[in-house]
Amino acid sequence: MMIVMKEGATEDQIAHVVDRVESIGCTAHISKGELLTLIGAIGGRDKEQTVSGLGLEAEPGVDHVVPISKPYKLASREFRKGEDSVLEIGGRKVGGTNFALIAGPCTVENRDQMLASADAVAEAGATMLRGGAYKPRTSPYSFQGLGREGLRLLAESRERTGLPIVTELLDLRDLDDVLEVADVIQVGARNMQNYALLGEIGKSGRPVLLKRGLSATVEELLMASEYVLKEGNENVMLCERGIRTYETAYRFTLDLLAIPALKEMTHLPVIVDPSHAPGRRDWVESMSLAAAAAGADGIIIEVHNEPEKAICDAAQQVPTSEFAGLTAKLEAVAGVVGKTISRV
Amino acid sequence: MMIVMKEGATEDQIAHVVDRVESIGCTAHISKGELLTLIGAIGGRDKEQTVSGLGLEAEPGVDHVVPISKPYKLASREFRKGEDSVLEIGGRKVGGTNFALIAGPCTVENRDQMLASADAVAEAGATMLRGGAYKPRTSPYSFQGLGREGLRLLAESRERTGLPIVTELLDLRDLDDVLEVADVIQVGARNMQNYALLGEIGKSGRPVLLKRGLSATVEELLMASEYVLKEGNENVMLCERGIRTYETAYRFTLDLLAIPALKEMTHLPVIVDPSHAPGRRDWVESMSLAAAAAGADGIIIEVHNEPEKAICDAAQQVPTSEFAGLTAKLEAVAGVVGKTISRV
Amino acid sequence: MMIVMKEGATEDQIAHVVDRVESIGCTAHISKGELLTLIGAIGGRDKEQTVSGLGLEAEPGVDHVVPISKPYKLASREFRKGEDSVLEIGGRKVGGTNFALIAGPCTVENRDQMLASADAVAEAGATMLRGGAYKPRTSPYSFQGLGREGLRLLAESRERTGLPIVTELLDLRDLDDVLEVADVIQVGARNMQNYALLGEIGKSGRPVLLKRGLSATVEELLMASEYVLKEGNENVMLCERGIRTYETAYRFTLDLLAIPALKEMTHLPVIVDPSHAPGRRDWVESMSLAAAAAGADGIIIEVHNEPEKAICDAAQQVPTSEFAGLTAKLEAVAGVVGKTISRV
Amino acid sequence: MMIVMKEGATEDQIAHVVDRVESIGCTAHISKGELLTLIGAIGGRDKEQTVSGLGLEAEPGVDHVVPISKPYKLASREFRKGEDSVLEIGGRKVGGTNFALIAGPCTVENRDQMLASADAVAEAGATMLRGGAYKPRTSPYSFQGLGREGLRLLAESRERTGLPIVTELLDLRDLDDVLEVADVIQVGARNMQNYALLGEIGKSGRPVLLKRGLSATVEELLMASEYVLKEGNENVMLCERGIRTYETAYRFTLDLLAIPALKEMTHLPVIVDPSHAPGRRDWVESMSLAAAAAGADGIIIEVHNEPEKAICDAAQQVPTSEFAGLTAKLEAVAGVVGKTISRV
Repeated sequence: MMIVMKEGATEDQIAHVVDRVESIGCTAHISKGELLTLIGAIGGRDKEQTVSGLGLEAEPGVDHVVPISKPYKLASREFRKGEDSVLEIGGRKVGGTNFALIAGPCTVENRDQMLASADAVAEAGATMLRGGAYKPRTSPYSFQGLGREGLRLLAESRERTGLPIVTELLDLRDLDDVLEVADVIQVGARNMQNYALLGEIGKSGRPVLLKRGLSATVEELLMASEYVLKEGNENVMLCERGIRTYETAYRFTLDLLAIPALKEMTHLPVIVDPSHAPGRRDWVESMSLAAAAAGADGIIIEVHNEPEKAICDAAQQVPTSEFAGLTAKLEAVAGVVGKTISRV
Repeated sequence: MMIVMKEGATEDQIAHVVDRVESIGCTAHISKGELLTLIGAIGGRDKEQTVSGLGLEAEPGVDHVVPISKPYKLASREFRKGEDSVLEIGGRKVGGTNFALIAGPCTVENRDQMLASADAVAEAGATMLRGGAYKPRTSPYSFQGLGREGLRLLAESRERTGLPIVTELLDLRDLDDVLEVADVIQVGARNMQNYALLGEIGKSGRPVLLKRGLSATVEELLMASEYVLKEGNENVMLCERGIRTYETAYRFTLDLLAIPALKEMTHLPVIVDPSHAPGRRDWVESMSLAAAAAGADGIIIEVHNEPEKAICDAAQQVPTSEFAGLTAKLEAVAGVVGKTISRV
Repeated sequence: MMIVMKEGATEDQIAHVVDRVESIGCTAHISKGELLTLIGAIGGRDKEQTVSGLGLEAEPGVDHVVPISKPYKLASREFRKGEDSVLEIGGRKVGGTNFALIAGPCTVENRDQMLASADAVAEAGATMLRGGAYKPRTSPYSFQGLGREGLRLLAESRERTGLPIVTELLDLRDLDDVLEVADVIQVGARNMQNYALLGEIGKSGRPVLLKRGLSATVEELLMASEYVLKEGNENVMLCERGIRTYETAYRFTLDLLAIPALKEMTHLPVIVDPSHAPGRRDWVESMSLAAAAAGADGIIIEVHNEPEKAICDAAQQVPTSEFAGLTAKLEAVAGVVGKTISRV
Repeated sequence: MMIVMKEGATEDQIAHVVDRVESIGCTAHISKGELLTLIGAIGGRDKEQTVSGLGLEAEPGVDHVVPISKPYKLASREFRKGEDSVLEIGGRKVGGTNFALIAGPCTVENRDQMLASADAVAEAGATMLRGGAYKPRTSPYSFQGLGREGLRLLAESRERTGLPIVTELLDLRDLDDVLEVADVIQVGARNMQNYALLGEIGKSGRPVLLKRGLSATVEELLMASEYVLKEGNENVMLCERGIRTYETAYRFTLDLLAIPALKEMTHLPVIVDPSHAPGRRDWVESMSLAAAAAGADGIIIEVHNEPEKAICDAAQQVPTSEFAGLTAKLEAVAGVVGKTISRV
């Protein structure tokens, strides 16, 4: 923590800040410049957390306070000495030089739709199958998912195709049901800071796909992953899915610069959801390819056998008939940056 | 729902959209302009919800789709025929011409701190007492609140001062404990779209203070309140607490324009949290007065007997010694816009 | 400037950064903590500007770089030793305990409209009269203002009412014409970083009302004012007019927290435009009162004798018939925070 | 324009809106739904512009107003019947299946730096050469560019390499000097809505690279291009360079979704600046490749022979030694989406 004093701060004000910093066991380094005095509060990550709780911003003579050390620990690249985490899920690798292609319908709607979509996704050579049994909906009057029946159809799809299943958990009370089916538990953007949920998923040890909140910084995404990691669950994938900005020409602004930034900050794999930000299927391919070119470790994309009939997010689901073509292009682009689509 | 066709959309494309709109029981009104054709899909709020699920944005010839009717219902001002909801909580009124002054420390830390703060808040004539027993923290390594012991101290504070208690619920598993003490359950910004939590609080019937999410629109805030209202719980207060923008000179941008906007959209009371957006106590008074001047139905403000020693958000808590002075100014400003601080 | 080295940065990397810092005449203070090494580059504001140009962020072993000293100088509160600037414009004071009430139509449309509006504004006791002769319009096909004829009508309005005139300059080529009429030159949000314009206005010495850009930080607003101040023109008023956020329920998000923040950062007066953010007249009063309560040094508000017939921004202009009532409330709120409406 | 009436709007209120719509020559189409009445104001783009000026949002009984037709005309894809514009600049094509690789230093600093950079860029097979003689700087105390001397060095670089020159114009008074050298005039983000500048560049007929403002919507970018196009200058390239969001881990958020969106809205070529958003050279390659994968018509990238010594934006300039490697990868990715780097 660095405390920047105001121009003209008095010796007493400086001494008072030094006292408070030292009162919690930190060392205070004072640097006097021509205009400003800086006080470095040094003492390891945990003590710095404590300094940040002192409210020094409000002390007389203090201009502002700058955090110096990173607030995340287990997620940091340094924690793994610069190496990438490579997860293994149902025999498929995620991370490193592997590109995970996760595809499937937004929502499990019925047996025909789910199995037809699953078959097509498997046929095109995807890495895992996605599908939602519980859906977070802005409106309480919208379709909320098939629930357990949806989970059952996902289990059937896995048996049929061999693909690991990625599905979302919304409510802790459904944890056991979801654990019976999910190879990867998805935590949606709205729940990125639902700490009760993160903690329990952490304890379960099951792999997690953690989506970035609508207006979360990449640092906050890493802090959220820390809630899972600190329970001993190292199987975390991060997911960029678009952030909220002022632009109204699309639903969200897909923040692909988060990919190289996160790859530098953390050892965890970084996945991109190219479907929700555009909100329309004709822009999904270009965002999928761009994610691969930017160095993502995979994408999670919505694919449906008959998008026009889809119950939810109909406009953005790519028809299964176009999915194999997209896969071929993805493979080519991923190749340029040294990655291969992950398969058994 | 209004479907705007592209310039040059063909008759077949128009007919196909009309078919899909009519397939779910809506009426399609066609307006042909010089450049564009518009198709209005009309049939009540519920059918419009269904139209929006059709994904017509992705149909050939469609340019974009504009929602027309409001997606919220029970929260809308029309639902109460233009009248304000006036809640009654422990004998205090919230809404209408009443200004609710809710004050107290960020976190319950210990008995001395809590009771001293409570006494001062009561003395200055506040409407209710706030205090957190469970704290949502970005870092898993930060203090997470006293939990049940905190609730016990809140109960003691209520007994002592007579003030109703506002406290936050984070985890459904703590609902029963919180219901024993809270006169108002606070739902924090991170949980605005935690639908499981909202539903259960709705069923409990207990009054709720629902904070706007960090990047939620005012419409989404109303949609979230709908999850509570539809369970038959009409005791909902909305709370503006600052939104996330690009500005880094303060923690959040307090969006006071949301006050007149919400007052027009909904019958529910609108409260403002003037503490979290500034993040520093010397800017809290001006935001409190501005909220009152803008027509808010109250504020929820952090006040502490010894802010310098506070465990959490130390910089932004107003010392109890300054609270009476602030209250006097608030009373004067609220008076200009026709409101009086709500007391028994 | 503070350079934060990565965990595990080598001695060589540290020495290289120190060399570069010293190469431009700064002193390097090294603080070694348990995890991190910090290098403070100290040497006055100008040298720090130079350090920031070194691109040290990209040096091996550097994690990030934190600016420490403020990049603005003449605008800073310290520059005036903590005192407020009080401008004097046509005998009216702006700043300190004075509240400037600047009112008038969006655009000068014709003689009847302009004079009727001016008369009503003067009658209600405003401080200055506003009106646009040159209008910045998003569309090249929209009405662009009356130009010189508009300036002439403003001159006539001043003669008639005695009120100083505030009007916008868009194009340097109109500077001389505008200087003939304007007591205050308005620089609109789109031109906040039009440095050619700012420099010439600076040289003219004429008072300036400088609007914050749509997505400018408060620090950038101060940097822009510095372009005027450094030419020796001290007559600068800053103006908050709403920033762009994701919220679509109103045109802009009025950032009233900028008021106390700016009042701490700078000695310059801070004015608020309560008209453009709401974009509708029924929300303008509450934003005007909120601005006064938050400690603004004035407002610049759109008032029109027949808003329904206005050529531009018709929805947001307050009818002159309601302006006296608004003025009375403003006076009451400003009084609570120790300000009086500025008149001759 | 579609006017949405409030629930419960009276017949008189509806009739009044119809009157106002018809008063300017539009036709009013009324659609009555169960809850709401819609009034479509139809009459071609120009009349719709006029309707939007009526301020109907503020009329009694009106809920809100929805623009229907696009406010831009010459830039719209429909205007060219769906065909892409392909510009020709010094023998190089921009648009269609051509990928323009524009590279060079941020600022022209001196003869050695400029010529060395130019040679390397030419050697690697770039399409055009960039370099700034006039620099827009947030601080008036920063280096503002070499001015005419910079232009002279650009002219020499062109002569030497044969590459067309892209350089920025900031101040109308420098227009003639810039016209002597620039094959493409760059308009920076800060000047996207400097209409005086746009109009004069439009009249000059010279090709323009128009950068998106820091918080401009893609629609506003098209409206700005319209100021150039309406003067008869069809040689406009649009440029995405990162928008301002709440994220602080990088300078700007590069909005690559704008590429497919713009390609659908307009016939104009879309270029991406991958340098300014990251602000650090190690993230520039991934953004360059992502831009190509997303379908951009080119990139404008900062390349410097000795970035460590650069005066301005040192951290983000790619060393010329790495540029050929980047070009090879770009070529591969562009190939996947059907584009070839544009050369003579």
